[in-house]
Amino acid sequence: MKILILGGAGMIGQKLLSLILQKKEIKSKKVSEITLFDIINAPYPENSSIPIITKSGDISDPKVSNDLILSKPDIIFHLAAIVSGQAEQEFDLGWNINTRGSWGLFEAIRSQGDSYRPRVVFTSSIAVFGSPFPDQIPDDFFTTPLTSYGAQKAISELLLADYSRKGMVDGISIRLPTICVRPGKPNLAASGFFSGIIREPLNGQEAILPVDTDVRHWHATPRSAAGFLIHAAELDTSKLNNRITLNMPGLSVTVQEQIEALGRVAGNDVVKLIKHQSDPVIKNIVSGWARNFSTKRSLELGFKAETTFDEIIQIYIEDDLKK
Amino acid sequence: MKILILGGAGMIGQKLLSLILQKKEIKSKKVSEITLFDIINAPYPENSSIPIITKSGDISDPKVSNDLILSKPDIIFHLAAIVSGQAEQEFDLGWNINTRGSWGLFEAIRSQGDSYRPRVVFTSSIAVFGSPFPDQIPDDFFTTPLTSYGAQKAISELLLADYSRKGMVDGISIRLPTICVRPGKPNLAASGFFSGIIREPLNGQEAILPVDTDVRHWHATPRSAAGFLIHAAELDTSKLNNRITLNMPGLSVTVQEQIEALGRVAGNDVVKLIKHQSDPVIKNIVSGWARNFSTKRSLELGFKAETTFDEIIQIYIEDDLKK
Repeated sequence: MKILILGGAGMIGQKLLSLILQKKEIKSKKVSEITLFDIINAPYPENSSIPIITKSGDISDPKVSNDLILSKPDIIFHLAAIVSGQAEQEFDLGWNINTRGSWGLFEAIRSQGDSYRPRVVFTSSIAVFGSPFPDQIPDDFFTTPLTSYGAQKAISELLLADYSRKGMVDGISIRLPTICVRPGKPNLAASGFFSGIIREPLNGQEAILPVDTDVRHWHATPRSAAGFLIHAAELDTSKLNNRITLNMPGLSVTVQEQIEALGRVAGNDVVKLIKHQSDPVIKNIVSGWARNFSTKRSLELGFKAETTFDEIIQIYIEDDLKK
Repeated sequence: MKILILGGAGMIGQKLLSLILQKKEIKSKKVSEITLFDIINAPYPENSSIPIITKSGDISDPKVSNDLILSKPDIIFHLAAIVSGQAEQEFDLGWNINTRGSWGLFEAIRSQGDSYRPRVVFTSSIAVFGSPFPDQIPDDFFTTPLTSYGAQKAISELLLADYSRKGMVDGISIRLPTICVRPGKPNLAASGFFSGIIREPLNGQEAILPVDTDVRHWHATPRSAAGFLIHAAELDTSKLNNRITLNMPGLSVTVQEQIEALGRVAGNDVVKLIKHQSDPVIKNIVSGWARNFSTKRSLELGFKAETTFDEIIQIYIEDDLKK
């Protein structure tokens, strides 16, 4: 079984790679080869027992997607994207990579002919939704994105659904919660503080909290995200009845609940490293984001996420803190 | 005020043209020029007091959309589309015209620069929805199209919404009900009988009813459709808060209710021209279609449709029967 990971150099791509190397098989079939594709050459463990190939390029170039499909991978994880902030600033770049790139990939698969119908797992985002929201967003809520990134993801979902309905690919789109605790250094993303207020204190550093503690948000760990991807790759998609786009499960907590969990897991001295420093710009951006979901369908289909924020912190400590 | 109608040769394009020629102004501004674009040269009244230009070509060709935008029309009605059945059969053609064509139009407008921001009224369709449905589809119901046509319309809506949010155009998308009573000759569309069982008997001809009389569907007249388009062109889009896609109002009736109305309006001898002749293929297609909507938003925004099927029949008699 050959695997292709588009966006293989990113944080989730790397977590997925680790999980595949650990499992060694998908759908009870041995993984024989993994190709990591990204805009740069992705890192990978040198001692891997499974052959790993890295390729780099621009996914919006049809030649690039055609080249990636030539080896007919059985499972394609499509995680490649220009992130939200950049897609909002660079309109053409965002549409080229996030929509024309996805479309070109589906076309490249289709052009291989009828006998080739790989599983395509596409990572979408809760950015397809735009406020105002109900208290809990249901599975059948409409997509009214308020960013170009959200629109690009929503369109890729619709493309994948139609190519799948027509039997040209075997697709599934999963809308990930905000990933928390994100490992690594602080970044400038507006959502960065949700991870920062946990990660920095656990590393003995101060963290800035730019919003009020009653702000509620929707979280899942990097470990869950990798698990969603594998589960989506193994799922019987005939169960989806052409509704191939799923809101992934997650945990809805307030910042106050995040801080209380940090206190329980790591003690009050660690909590004291969080400094409140209100930022009206970030407050305003965050107020437009989805806070809570009812994810009946994905739970029934066996997708699993954390159920307490204590658990989310523990997973960060186990998977990333000491590395 | 310059008007451009894409799809100007079609039935709704022609109804819209008549309404504009009758009103002579939009948003209290005199209409100075109307351009009709279609794959063929559209017919128009020779004695029109407003100058009418006809152009023909392929809207998926960027040169064609750029040429149409050069004169900077103030209002663009985008009705051009490959219809549902053909888009399902001819995959590339449908995607080229219905999605790449719309996208190319929005790009052509954007390329004119910041000072040009025309109103674009895009006709979408209830085909963006796919069964199973709730009894009444609410305004915030998700789009899970079961045809390529529906997917192409849903994607064009998302594109127009993002280009509008970014201030590149001033767009609004309206999802039309099934148009009934459609004037003209019977056609092979699966939905054709909804009009045929009224139109043919009123013209003294037999009509085939291929489904059971308890089938429920969602209707509006050609006159309403033209009215929706004008109202959408005149609406203050800042009221839409970036949710520029609206389900248009309509009337939900069963075939039985259609037949009873025909009896009241035209008498029982006319009703006797309807012949039941069950068609399993059409029954199956129709069972996947939306039956009823709650269109709170569009009603609050002042869009108006018929409220009885008697009225729908009367409008056909007034507008089309004797012509």
